[in-house]
Amino acid sequence: MSKLPVLEIFGPTIQGEGMVIGRKTMFVRTAGCDYRCSWCDSAFTWDGSAKDEIRKMSADDIFNELKELGGTRFNHVTISGGNPALLAGMDALVEQLHDHSIEVALETQGSKWQDWMGNIDDLTISPKPPSSMMKTDFGKLDAIINELRSQDRVEKHTSLKVVVFNDEDFEYAVHVHERYPDVPFFLQVGNDDTSTADDDNLTRDLLNKYEWLINKTMEDARMNNVRVLPQLHTFVWGNSRGV
Amino acid sequence: MSKLPVLEIFGPTIQGEGMVIGRKTMFVRTAGCDYRCSWCDSAFTWDGSAKDEIRKMSADDIFNELKELGGTRFNHVTISGGNPALLAGMDALVEQLHDHSIEVALETQGSKWQDWMGNIDDLTISPKPPSSMMKTDFGKLDAIINELRSQDRVEKHTSLKVVVFNDEDFEYAVHVHERYPDVPFFLQVGNDDTSTADDDNLTRDLLNKYEWLINKTMEDARMNNVRVLPQLHTFVWGNSRGV
Ligand code: SF4
Ligand code: SF4
Repeated sequence: MSKLPVLEIFGPTIQGEGMVIGRKTMFVRTAGCDYRCSWCDSAFTWDGSAKDEIRKMSADDIFNELKELGGTRFNHVTISGGNPALLAGMDALVEQLHDHSIEVALETQGSKWQDWMGNIDDLTISPKPPSSMMKTDFGKLDAIINELRSQDRVEKHTSLKVVVFNDEDFEYAVHVHERYPDVPFFLQVGNDDTSTADDDNLTRDLLNKYEWLINKTMEDARMNNVRVLPQLHTFVWGNSRGV
Repeated sequence: MSKLPVLEIFGPTIQGEGMVIGRKTMFVRTAGCDYRCSWCDSAFTWDGSAKDEIRKMSADDIFNELKELGGTRFNHVTISGGNPALLAGMDALVEQLHDHSIEVALETQGSKWQDWMGNIDDLTISPKPPSSMMKTDFGKLDAIINELRSQDRVEKHTSLKVVVFNDEDFEYAVHVHERYPDVPFFLQVGNDDTSTADDDNLTRDLLNKYEWLINKTMEDARMNNVRVLPQLHTFVWGNSRGV
């Protein structure tokens, strides 16, 4: 059985973002990413700073640790990264969770397809806007969305989420939404201070940015069928890891 | 054509709560409620304090005012109250909005059924916990949920939402969730200071309460399949009306 590089397993807590915002879930965070976003809030998954914390775990190992932590108090697991879509061997974990009636969410930027992604209950594809300094491969993203469409996964099981830091990012978000109008679409406020420990100021700053993003969206007739959300966990726990 | 008692029409803004949290929407708030919740944040809809602001409007009048305010910048309208389910004549408005490809959400406590409720795209039923001092008629609520089940409206178009202020409210929420396990379920933090203008303190206080509700839910194996949310608009705009 193939081993997966795991950096964090924690919960139960709430999903603070996106299509199942507020959902009670456990988190599994894998190491490794094919991107290097300028404002990555999980840079420790790929910049080497946490490399001694990476554990090579089988699906069984991960499942057992989830059960140890969460007992009977969860039925939803979120796989996050880094980019978990780099890992072909994730199929066994997804199957094992489903066998135990546990739903599975995945967060990925949409740069790679794996066949097990067709079995994800809540799939969030989060292409990165210009401020990240990354370049979206839209040919690849088209292929992924088409694959999901052909498996009838779009309406109920998929969403697109774009993090917005500035006007240029917003235009990028409009482009993504107009390219895939049938995919549920979420705008999310960017957090450009992922190191401060001053939670009150962070909350105030993020609320101001959230209001800015709301106002921009409200004025724009191209962005009617969208949802605009903050990161709730940042309001509650600031920049802490593992909550 | 029957006239509806309308107190507010505003937007576009975001839906700050519940099943379509973050969704760009317009609001229509009707006057009148069959409840008198102790902590009602819309008491002006029924306590007489805003009775001079009530306008008797036809579906056409309401539709025209929505278009005047929102232009082409919306495709979703939320009908709120008070309890809009008191108004049999709402059917014409729902139909007119649908005819223009505009989705319709409704917020009601679940004390009354109207046939047009079977056409609502995002129906939030919000039975009131003990702290409200109201008593839920579960026979009535059973009948409403069964009607929605028989029309196959539950999975995609309906949610239950319970506002929680204290431990007793939480137990009530558990009871509601266990009674209707097939209905998507949302827990919401109660705001017991609906008059303060001190937004920073209000935000901090609501975040503390939100963390309390998250922690309670995380510990409780009866509440796995739920989502726990705050009121986002209160974070952004405090207790202001009409945003
Ligand atoms: S894709 Fe995600 S994990 Fe990878 S660098 Fe960008 S923000 Fe970080
Ligand atoms: S049901 Fe809603 S509008 Fe009516 S009194 Fe209670 S909180 Fe207020």
